[in-house]
Amino acid sequence: MAKTPINIGMVGYGFMGRAHSNAWRRVPNFFDTGYEPVLKAVAARDAEKARAFADQWGYESVETDWRKLVERDDIDAIDICTPNDTHAEIAIAAAEKGKMILCEKPLARDAKEAAPMVAAVEKAGVANTVWYNYRRIPAVTLIKQVVASGKLGKIFHYRANFLQDWTISPDVPQGGPGTWRLDAAAAGSGVTGDLLAHCIDTAIWINGSIASLTAMTETFVKERQHALTGKTEKVGIDDAAAVICRYANGALGTFESTRYARGHKALYTLEVNGEHGSFAWDLHDMNRVQWFDHSVPGELRGWTDIHVTDGEHPYLGKWWVPGLIIGYEHSFVHQAADFLEGLKSDTPTSPTFREALETTRVCDAILESARTQKWVGIG
Amino acid sequence: MAKTPINIGMVGYGFMGRAHSNAWRRVPNFFDTGYEPVLKAVAARDAEKARAFADQWGYESVETDWRKLVERDDIDAIDICTPNDTHAEIAIAAAEKGKMILCEKPLARDAKEAAPMVAAVEKAGVANTVWYNYRRIPAVTLIKQVVASGKLGKIFHYRANFLQDWTISPDVPQGGPGTWRLDAAAAGSGVTGDLLAHCIDTAIWINGSIASLTAMTETFVKERQHALTGKTEKVGIDDAAAVICRYANGALGTFESTRYARGHKALYTLEVNGEHGSFAWDLHDMNRVQWFDHSVPGELRGWTDIHVTDGEHPYLGKWWVPGLIIGYEHSFVHQAADFLEGLKSDTPTSPTFREALETTRVCDAILESARTQKWVGIG
Amino acid sequence: MAKTPINIGMVGYGFMGRAHSNAWRRVPNFFDTGYEPVLKAVAARDAEKARAFADQWGYESVETDWRKLVERDDIDAIDICTPNDTHAEIAIAAAEKGKMILCEKPLARDAKEAAPMVAAVEKAGVANTVWYNYRRIPAVTLIKQVVASGKLGKIFHYRANFLQDWTISPDVPQGGPGTWRLDAAAAGSGVTGDLLAHCIDTAIWINGSIASLTAMTETFVKERQHALTGKTEKVGIDDAAAVICRYANGALGTFESTRYARGHKALYTLEVNGEHGSFAWDLHDMNRVQWFDHSVPGELRGWTDIHVTDGEHPYLGKWWVPGLIIGYEHSFVHQAADFLEGLKSDTPTSPTFREALETTRVCDAILESARTQKWVGIG
Amino acid sequence: MAKTPINIGMVGYGFMGRAHSNAWRRVPNFFDTGYEPVLKAVAARDAEKARAFADQWGYESVETDWRKLVERDDIDAIDICTPNDTHAEIAIAAAEKGKMILCEKPLARDAKEAAPMVAAVEKAGVANTVWYNYRRIPAVTLIKQVVASGKLGKIFHYRANFLQDWTISPDVPQGGPGTWRLDAAAAGSGVTGDLLAHCIDTAIWINGSIASLTAMTETFVKERQHALTGKTEKVGIDDAAAVICRYANGALGTFESTRYARGHKALYTLEVNGEHGSFAWDLHDMNRVQWFDHSVPGELRGWTDIHVTDGEHPYLGKWWVPGLIIGYEHSFVHQAADFLEGLKSDTPTSPTFREALETTRVCDAILESARTQKWVGIG
Repeated sequence: MAKTPINIGMVGYGFMGRAHSNAWRRVPNFFDTGYEPVLKAVAARDAEKARAFADQWGYESVETDWRKLVERDDIDAIDICTPNDTHAEIAIAAAEKGKMILCEKPLARDAKEAAPMVAAVEKAGVANTVWYNYRRIPAVTLIKQVVASGKLGKIFHYRANFLQDWTISPDVPQGGPGTWRLDAAAAGSGVTGDLLAHCIDTAIWINGSIASLTAMTETFVKERQHALTGKTEKVGIDDAAAVICRYANGALGTFESTRYARGHKALYTLEVNGEHGSFAWDLHDMNRVQWFDHSVPGELRGWTDIHVTDGEHPYLGKWWVPGLIIGYEHSFVHQAADFLEGLKSDTPTSPTFREALETTRVCDAILESARTQKWVGIG
Repeated sequence: MAKTPINIGMVGYGFMGRAHSNAWRRVPNFFDTGYEPVLKAVAARDAEKARAFADQWGYESVETDWRKLVERDDIDAIDICTPNDTHAEIAIAAAEKGKMILCEKPLARDAKEAAPMVAAVEKAGVANTVWYNYRRIPAVTLIKQVVASGKLGKIFHYRANFLQDWTISPDVPQGGPGTWRLDAAAAGSGVTGDLLAHCIDTAIWINGSIASLTAMTETFVKERQHALTGKTEKVGIDDAAAVICRYANGALGTFESTRYARGHKALYTLEVNGEHGSFAWDLHDMNRVQWFDHSVPGELRGWTDIHVTDGEHPYLGKWWVPGLIIGYEHSFVHQAADFLEGLKSDTPTSPTFREALETTRVCDAILESARTQKWVGIG
Repeated sequence: MAKTPINIGMVGYGFMGRAHSNAWRRVPNFFDTGYEPVLKAVAARDAEKARAFADQWGYESVETDWRKLVERDDIDAIDICTPNDTHAEIAIAAAEKGKMILCEKPLARDAKEAAPMVAAVEKAGVANTVWYNYRRIPAVTLIKQVVASGKLGKIFHYRANFLQDWTISPDVPQGGPGTWRLDAAAAGSGVTGDLLAHCIDTAIWINGSIASLTAMTETFVKERQHALTGKTEKVGIDDAAAVICRYANGALGTFESTRYARGHKALYTLEVNGEHGSFAWDLHDMNRVQWFDHSVPGELRGWTDIHVTDGEHPYLGKWWVPGLIIGYEHSFVHQAADFLEGLKSDTPTSPTFREALETTRVCDAILESARTQKWVGIG
Repeated sequence: MAKTPINIGMVGYGFMGRAHSNAWRRVPNFFDTGYEPVLKAVAARDAEKARAFADQWGYESVETDWRKLVERDDIDAIDICTPNDTHAEIAIAAAEKGKMILCEKPLARDAKEAAPMVAAVEKAGVANTVWYNYRRIPAVTLIKQVVASGKLGKIFHYRANFLQDWTISPDVPQGGPGTWRLDAAAAGSGVTGDLLAHCIDTAIWINGSIASLTAMTETFVKERQHALTGKTEKVGIDDAAAVICRYANGALGTFESTRYARGHKALYTLEVNGEHGSFAWDLHDMNRVQWFDHSVPGELRGWTDIHVTDGEHPYLGKWWVPGLIIGYEHSFVHQAADFLEGLKSDTPTSPTFREALETTRVCDAILESARTQKWVGIG
C-alpha cells in the first residue's frame, strides 16, 4: 500500500529542530498513518550548521532564508522550531502560501502577536497545530480520557508545577543560541511562556478554561551578560511565577514555575482532584500515573501507581511490550502521528493555533496580574 | 535522683486531649527532664465522659467547670485542648492565676482574640507555648537545623500544602463534638486555621516572616446540617484556600490547603529550595526527608531520601534503633519534653503565644485577601 | 468498670526490656482489654541499673536474681527479655511455678533447647506467647487477613529479606551488652535467629509451613574482639544467609538476610504473589502496604499504595485519625493487647511457644543446609 | 565528512527484529560513529510478512531463506533475531562467510550449542557481539563504571530478580510466533535463558564471575496447548527459578525469576552492596538509580535517587536535556553505536560471543542444580 508523501520544511535546527526531525523520521516505522513524511529542506541562517544538521537528519536540501523555504512549491508543511519572536512572521507568511503549519510552543511572545497568526491560518484554511507535546505522553492522555469520561465526578482542584534549577548561577548568560529563553526580546517571557504554558495547555485540555487568576513573578538575578552583545544587561524575563486561579467549572487552581528550585531538572507535575477520584503525574517518571479510586472498598483503597506501558494504554500498542518504557521524544512522534491522522480524516489536530492562543492569553494574564497585583479575568 | 512533680490540669478530652495526655504519660519513660508530670485533673462539662477519660489516662480527679480547675492551687499548668472559641477565655483566666499554659493551636479564632492572650501571659510572666507539634517531628526539626546553619544559601522558594478529603460528602455535619472544625463559630475558620496554620508556623520557623500575600478561599458545600441544632445552616468556613506570598527574606511562597483533595488523608507537604540545596518532606512518611545537595559531583547527584531514625537525628537518640520509626504522637511527646527542658533552663518553649500570634495574623491576612481580592501586608 | 490487675515480672532491661515495658504501660490508655498490667518487678543482675530502669518505667521493685522473681507469689506473668541463651532456663522455671510467660524471640538458640520449653508450658497449662512483634504491624496483619480470605487465589511466591549494615566494621565487638547478638554462645546464631526468624515467622503465618530448603551462610569478618574478655576470638555466627525453599502449599520461597547490606538499617521486606493479586511491604515504611489487584480493568491497574492508617484497618481504630502514622513500638502494644484479650477469652495468643518452635526448626534447617550444602526437609 | 556504509542483513522480523531495526535507523541521527548502517535485506520464511516488515523499516530487499542472505556479497553484518534454536546454525554459517555477527541473546539454547559459535567467530576473526542490551541502559552503565572505580570497596552482595506475570493463565499457548519462549524446543529453557540470562550477564559484568551455585526451578502449569500443533503438550520450560550463589570475589548472590509474580510486567531489579556504598536499579524506572554513599556525614546520609538524564551520564550527552528521559529502545541504539565505535577502533564490543558463553554456562548450571538438587561449580 503506497504511502502519500508529505514534504516537510523545517525552520530552525536547535533542540526543537532535533526533536521534531526525530518525530518525522520515527513516525512511519511505528504508526500506519498512510503518509510518508519527507524531510525536504531545513532553513537556517548559518549555512554550514544547516548543512551539518541536514546531513545528520537526512534533509534533502538547505535554505539560508526561511522565506525561500516558504516559497518553495515542493514543500507541503512548514515546521517552525525557531525562537518565539520569529513564530508570527514565519507562520503568517507560510499561511499565505497555503502551507500546513506546525509551530513550536508558545504560539508567540504574547496574544497580540499570536492573534494574527490564528487569523492567517484560518483565512488560508491550512492545517495547523502547536507542539504542546506533553499532552501526548500516554500517561497524560490517559488522565485526559478518564477525566473526560466523567469518572472523577465534579472537579475541585487542578494544580500543576514546572520546576527547574538551571539558571541559578548568575553566570548563565541571556540571549544567543542556548540561552535565548532568558532574553525577553526573543522569548517574550521567562518561565511563564516557556514552562507554565505547558502546564496551562494541559490544564485547559483536561479541566477546561481558566476564568480568572492572580499571580506574582520574580526575577532573582537582575542582570546577566548578553551572549550576543557581550554586555551586562537588565534581565527582562520572569525567573519564577506563581498563580492562583478559578476555572470556569468552579474548580480552584494553583500553578508554580521556577528555574530556581534546586534539585529539579524538568519537574512538571500535575494533579487533579475530583469527587470520586484523583490523578497525579510527573514528567520525571512520565510513564507512570498515580490514580486514586474512591470507589474501592476502604481497607484496600489507596493511590494506584499505573505503569503506563500496556497495549491498551494510549499510543502504547505501537511500541514495545508491558513494562518497557518510552521516553520524552515519543511525545513528539505521537503528535506527528496525530497530525498525519488528522490530515487523513480532515480533523484539526489539537491544539490548533486557536486553542493555543487561549493558553497565551492566560500567560498574558499572569504577567499582567504580576504587574498590577490584581485579579485578571480571561474573557 | 528525685524528679520535680509538675501538676497538669487538662481542659477538654477530645482527640487533642488524648494526644496531650499521652505526651505527658510518655515523657518520663523516654526523656530525662528532671520533671515528673502528674495528671492531676481533667475538666469537661460532661461529668461521665470526663470520668471515663480520667480513668483511661490516670487523671486523679475531674472538674466539670474549667474555672474550678484554673482556681485549684494544686495545678501548675493548664493544658487547653478545647475548641478554638474557648482558648482565649481559659488562657487569660489561667494566666491571671499564674498558671503555666500550654494551648492547642491555633492560638485563637483570630488575632483580635489572640492578642489579649499574649498580653495576659506576658503580664503574668508564666511559661506558655502553643502545640504546633509538627515542628517537633524529627525530620522537620532536621530541616530547620540545616537551613539555620546556612548550608542552603539564599532561599528562593518555600512551599507547603495540607491536603485532606474528609468533608467531600455533604452529609458531614458542622458543629458538635467530632465536627466543630466545620463550624465557623467554634473554629473561627476552616482549613486556614486548622491546616494552613500548621504550614505557616513551620514556614516562619524555617524561613522567617511572611511579608505580604494574596489568597483565595472557597466553600464547596454551602450548607450543612448543624450537629447540635439539627438544622441545615450556611457553612461559614473555608473548605479550601490557596495563597501566594513573599517572605521577608525575598523568597517566594505558595500554600494550599483543602479538605476536597480526594485520596489525601493528612498530606502536609513542605519544600524549601535554596541556592545550594533543597529539602522536601511530607507527613504521611514523616520519618523521611528528601535532601538535595548540589555540592555532590554531578554524576552521583540526586535527591537523598534520609530515613530519619538514627541516634544522631533530632530526638531519635531517645527512642529505638536505626530503621525503626516513630509515629504522629511522638511529636507531642517531644513538645512536652521540650517544655519541661525549657522550665529547667528557664527558656521559653517555641512557639510561645507571641510567636503563635504571628501565625494567626498571617491566617487573618489570608482570609482578608480572599474577601478583598487584594494583596495584604503583614506588618 | 474495674479492671483486673495482672502483675508483670520482667527479666532483662535492655532494648527489648524498654520495648516491652512501654507496651505494658501503653496498653490500658488505648485498648479496653479489661486488664490493668502492673509493672511489679524487674530482675537483672546489676542492682543499680535495674533500679534506674525500674524508676524510669515505674516498676515497683527490683530483683537481682531472676529465680527470685519467678518464685514470687505476687507475679502473674514473666516477660523474658534477656539474651537467647537464657530463655529456656527462665521459661521452664517460670512454667513450673505456673506463671504465664511472654518470651522474646527467638524462642531459644535452637530447637533442641526450645523443645523442652514447649513441653514445660504445655504441661503447666500456662498462657504463653513469643514476641514476634512484626506480625502485629497493621499492614502485615492486613496482608495476613486478605491472603487468608482467599482473595489472592493460589500462591506462587513468597519472598522476604531482612537487610542491615551495622556490623560491617571489624571494630564492632562480639559479646557483651549491646553486641551479644554477634556472640554465638549467647545468640545461638547470627542473622538467621535474629532476623530471618522474623521473616520465617511471618511467612509461615501468612503462607503456611515451609517443607524443604537449601541455604548458604557466610561470616565476612572472621574474628572480632569479645566485649567481655577483651580477647580477639573467632566469630561463630552467620553474618549473612540466603535461602531458597518450597512451601507445603507448592509456592516457592526465597529469603535473604545480612548485616552487610550498606545503606539498609532494618529493611525487612516481604512480598507474596498469588494468582489474582500480590502484596508487598517493608519495615522502613511500615504503615504502607503495596497491593496489586488483577481484577481491576487493565487500563487503570497497578500497584496500590495503601496508607494503613484508617479506622477500619487492623488496630488503627485505637489510635489517631487517617493519615497519622504509628511506629515500631506499637507492634508490641498490639501484642500485649492481644495477649490480654486472649486471657479474657481463654484463647492462646499466636505465636505460642509451639508455633514459635516451628520457626526455630526452620532456622536450624537453614544452618544445617549451609553446613552440608544439601536440601533439608522440615518434617 | 562521508560516512562508511555498513550493510546489515537481518534474520527475523519479530519483536527483536523491530528493536534492532530501530537501533540501526536511529544510530546515525544521534551518534557520530563514522558509519552509516544500511538496511540491505531482511530474511524470513514468510515472504509477505517479510516484505511488509521491509517496507515499514526501509529494508532494500527480502530473502525467504537466511542462507541466501548469508551468502550475499553485499551484506557486511548479519543480525540474528530469530528464536534461540536457530542462532547456532545461522551464526556459524555467517562466520564461515566472513560476516560480522550480532546475535540476539541468549547465545544459544545451552553451552553445548553455543561453544561452536564462539569457535566459529574466533576462527573467522569476525566482529561479534550478543545483544545483552540492558548493560547499555545509562543507569546500569553508570553502576558498572562506579563499581569498577573501586568506590564501593569490597563487595558483599549482588542480587537480582526478573519478575513477570504474563503466563499465569493456562490459556497462554506454547510454541508459535508470540509464544515460542514457552516451548523448550525453541527456547531451550524458560525464565532461565530468557530473563535470568540478562541478570547474570549484568552481574558478571559488574561483579565478576560466579563460582558456584545451587538453584530450584518450577513449572507451575504442567501442560499447555502448542500453538503450531494445536495439541496439549507437556511444558518443558522452567516457569520460575531461584538461585543462591557465590562469586569469585567472595560476594554472595541471589537471583530469582518468574513469570508468575502477579503485578510485575518486566521488573528486572538489581542491587550491589559494597563496604562503602550500594547501588540499586530497576527496569520499570530505568532512568533512575539508587545510590547510597556511606561517606556522607550521618545526619544527611541516605539513598540518593539519581535521575540519570544529564549530559555527564553515560550516553545521555547524545540525547536531550536534563530531566527528559529515554526509553527501552535506546539501549539497543547504544549497543549498535558501541558496535560501530568498536569497528572504528578495532575493539571487540562486549559481550562478545565468548563472554556471552559464560552467561549460558551459568544458566546451564542453574538448570543442572535444579535437577540434581546439588551445588554446581562453574569451572
